[in-house]
Amino acid sequence: MEFLFDFLMRFVAQFQSPTLGFLIGGMVIAALGSNLKIPNAIYQFIVFMLLMKMGIKGGIEIREADLNAMLLPAVSAVIIGITIVLIGSFFFSLLPGIKREDGIATAGLFGAVSASTLAAAMVLLEEEAIHFEAWVPALYPFMDIPALILAIVLANIHLKKQNEGKDSKVDVWGIVKESLRGSALSALILGLALGLLTKSDGVLDSFYEPLFSGFLSVLMLVMGMEAYARINELRRVAHLYAVYAFFGPIIHGLMAFGLGYIAHVTVGFSPGGVILLAVIAASSSDISGPPTLRGGIPSANPSTYIGASTSVGTPVAIAVCIPLFIALAQVVFDL
Amino acid sequence: MEFLFDFLMRFVAQFQSPTLGFLIGGMVIAALGSNLKIPNAIYQFIVFMLLMKMGIKGGIEIREADLNAMLLPAVSAVIIGITIVLIGSFFFSLLPGIKREDGIATAGLFGAVSASTLAAAMVLLEEEAIHFEAWVPALYPFMDIPALILAIVLANIHLKKQNEGKDSKVDVWGIVKESLRGSALSALILGLALGLLTKSDGVLDSFYEPLFSGFLSVLMLVMGMEAYARINELRRVAHLYAVYAFFGPIIHGLMAFGLGYIAHVTVGFSPGGVILLAVIAASSSDISGPPTLRGGIPSANPSTYIGASTSVGTPVAIAVCIPLFIALAQVVFDL
Amino acid sequence: MEFLFDFLMRFVAQFQSPTLGFLIGGMVIAALGSNLKIPNAIYQFIVFMLLMKMGIKGGIEIREADLNAMLLPAVSAVIIGITIVLIGSFFFSLLPGIKREDGIATAGLFGAVSASTLAAAMVLLEEEAIHFEAWVPALYPFMDIPALILAIVLANIHLKKQNEGKDSKVDVWGIVKESLRGSALSALILGLALGLLTKSDGVLDSFYEPLFSGFLSVLMLVMGMEAYARINELRRVAHLYAVYAFFGPIIHGLMAFGLGYIAHVTVGFSPGGVILLAVIAASSSDISGPPTLRGGIPSANPSTYIGASTSVGTPVAIAVCIPLFIALAQVVFDL
Repeated sequence: MEFLFDFLMRFVAQFQSPTLGFLIGGMVIAALGSNLKIPNAIYQFIVFMLLMKMGIKGGIEIREADLNAMLLPAVSAVIIGITIVLIGSFFFSLLPGIKREDGIATAGLFGAVSASTLAAAMVLLEEEAIHFEAWVPALYPFMDIPALILAIVLANIHLKKQNEGKDSKVDVWGIVKESLRGSALSALILGLALGLLTKSDGVLDSFYEPLFSGFLSVLMLVMGMEAYARINELRRVAHLYAVYAFFGPIIHGLMAFGLGYIAHVTVGFSPGGVILLAVIAASSSDISGPPTLRGGIPSANPSTYIGASTSVGTPVAIAVCIPLFIALAQVVFDL
Repeated sequence: MEFLFDFLMRFVAQFQSPTLGFLIGGMVIAALGSNLKIPNAIYQFIVFMLLMKMGIKGGIEIREADLNAMLLPAVSAVIIGITIVLIGSFFFSLLPGIKREDGIATAGLFGAVSASTLAAAMVLLEEEAIHFEAWVPALYPFMDIPALILAIVLANIHLKKQNEGKDSKVDVWGIVKESLRGSALSALILGLALGLLTKSDGVLDSFYEPLFSGFLSVLMLVMGMEAYARINELRRVAHLYAVYAFFGPIIHGLMAFGLGYIAHVTVGFSPGGVILLAVIAASSSDISGPPTLRGGIPSANPSTYIGASTSVGTPVAIAVCIPLFIALAQVVFDL
Repeated sequence: MEFLFDFLMRFVAQFQSPTLGFLIGGMVIAALGSNLKIPNAIYQFIVFMLLMKMGIKGGIEIREADLNAMLLPAVSAVIIGITIVLIGSFFFSLLPGIKREDGIATAGLFGAVSASTLAAAMVLLEEEAIHFEAWVPALYPFMDIPALILAIVLANIHLKKQNEGKDSKVDVWGIVKESLRGSALSALILGLALGLLTKSDGVLDSFYEPLFSGFLSVLMLVMGMEAYARINELRRVAHLYAVYAFFGPIIHGLMAFGLGYIAHVTVGFSPGGVILLAVIAASSSDISGPPTLRGGIPSANPSTYIGASTSVGTPVAIAVCIPLFIALAQVVFDL
């Protein structure tokens, strides 16, 4: 009982965080019909900045890291990404009136990862002074790529079964390349490489690091406005997507929290790392995933999976899951 | 005599301020035909950043402020906004060859407020180490909205009288909503809300605050270039607009200086606050006012009011009024 | 022998610099087909920021500088700019299959200066803690403008000889004005004026200076991607352009290093200044030069000179010449 009360208090307290405030503020002003706009060029640049910062910092850390410590979390990330897609595809296949490839594509997007959500979680952990290994953001592709590949493979197997006549092979290596070439992953990997190979501490400390939380606040605002704008898109598709998009992130995150906890006990994975792994699992891809899926499953309807992710999945991942997992960790790890 | 000399010395000294330097520099390079351009996306983002900073800081301050202290300046702001529109509309109605609604719209824009001018004044006060209450920028909407509403109402009453047949009602609440939804006011109010409700000191101190004066310098440059580009627009309309646009800001500001002085004596309004109130009164709206007026008084010619404000009113407010009121305050309050 | 070994060690060590890392990283991800994009508005703003910083800092320094010390380097800059164009024009005139005005325009672009290359060199010198006079960036126009003018004059004399009938005069003053109005030079000169005339130390220290190396890192990335994208353009024209674009910067830089050395011995020009003069000579103009040449020599093929400069000349100037001249200076001046 006291446990639950303690947990609830900590959960609620986090809504004073400016990071969540900007997200909710964005939704509110969009709902009120504000004409405020953040130019698209700024938005793209902010995403680039956040990814470079995560990449460079991760690269510097990996240079000195104990790679054994990273192994179990990385394997967990792969397992989680695959499991989310399998569970989601199965769930949607049980429901009536949902086109099979739409369901698989949606599950794929929820298995993939959102860099912005991850960045938001990192800032909140810093605000709460909860430590995590700087290589944790580098777990991103370990969950993202397998999830997208699996979704595209599953959808194509299904489509092949439908029209036995056609003999279209699934180009797995093509999907991997497509994912890595996406703007999000290539910025992250470039950052990792620069962090690993060059003396980039100076430019990290003088530029990417100090601007991080500020740029994130602007990004949260944009994401809040975007989430509200997409609500209508979601209304047009079955309500079942909204249910999945609401509960999916929470369930995926708790699953990852469990695996992270095992890594904590066995190889000393930090509590902050456990939270971030859960947040990565809870997040769904808004920027880099959609074009990959559009290329890989052209017959799926983008407004289903993008609507589900942007208008419900991402706000839930940021405004519900992040505070939830932080509060959970504070209670479980006694922070 | 010594008073005047002292005043003149202080006035001239302020032209070494980089803030004014950037404004004048922008005019000069535009006059010389430079191809330098600041992309529009950057310009929009800079305005957003300035307004968020003013809003967040104001919100944090209001949280701890003595609201009684704010009451008299806020009431003064409303009075000034209304008075400027009434005087201006009356002035233009006396002149031959000026379409009635053009005059009213121009008076409305000069009653409304320019966030950039306010920001410039704040930076100059910091350079001169003159203190002001951080909630002063929150006076902005108290002058801006009444002025715009009054101008639109006056114009519509006039138009109704002209064509007695038509029975178009003036939608006051619609004008208020339109004003609040404008990008400038919604950014300012969002900032205020975030400052009031979230722990936003961190992101303010690490991002919005340190970038403020730098972004303002870029904005001043853009405004200088813009002012020069609009000069031709002004030439096309009656010279009387130029006369109004030159003397209006000075008279409006002095009027506000007087009311501010009363607030200083009665409720201890700071000298810096008196200067800022005068600057708000002297400023005319370049960004958020015009679309509201265009919507509310469609028959008025935008090149009259925008030309008067951007090409003469704003440069005069920044480069003449700000140094003038600072010098005046230094002499009056013995700073 | 030991000298050579020492030199090689220092040369190789510099490839750990993040500045060069970002340039090479940009080329690599472009070669791998990444979809990462830095919006054009951001790119333009970054270039503006770098030039303003160089200008303001130069202006502040010139205010206190010994102008005699600046005289010899400035004269050297003029001589180098003219010499590069003369040598290059002569070299291309010897080669078969190259249109005369294409050769002259290319030589003109290599005589002109790249602000980005200069900025990269300044950051590397700071990383290596090598001092230079802050007015050195102000040498830029002394080399840039004479080179462009000479190229346009030479090309027009040649074209006039071809069609004796036409009597088109070369408008030298028009070319000077065109150069000064270009976005790069007008930003630099505006910065110089603001540094000279206003108290701009505050905004320099709080904004332009701290963002400098970070923005440069983004610019290097863009330039790397751009260089790769232009490679194909170069392939379409004669291979001799590639040879010139590779060896030209090295030879031009060494020539300037020699003149700079003389200024070091005679008027105490700093070793860092000698390096920067050599880098300015090695650099070729990517941003401001091409439009001037396009206007001045309309019959020249832009893909020859822009391809040669952007795809080979600039990467060589940054990634080969800068480390080369730093290593050379470290050995020559025993730093």
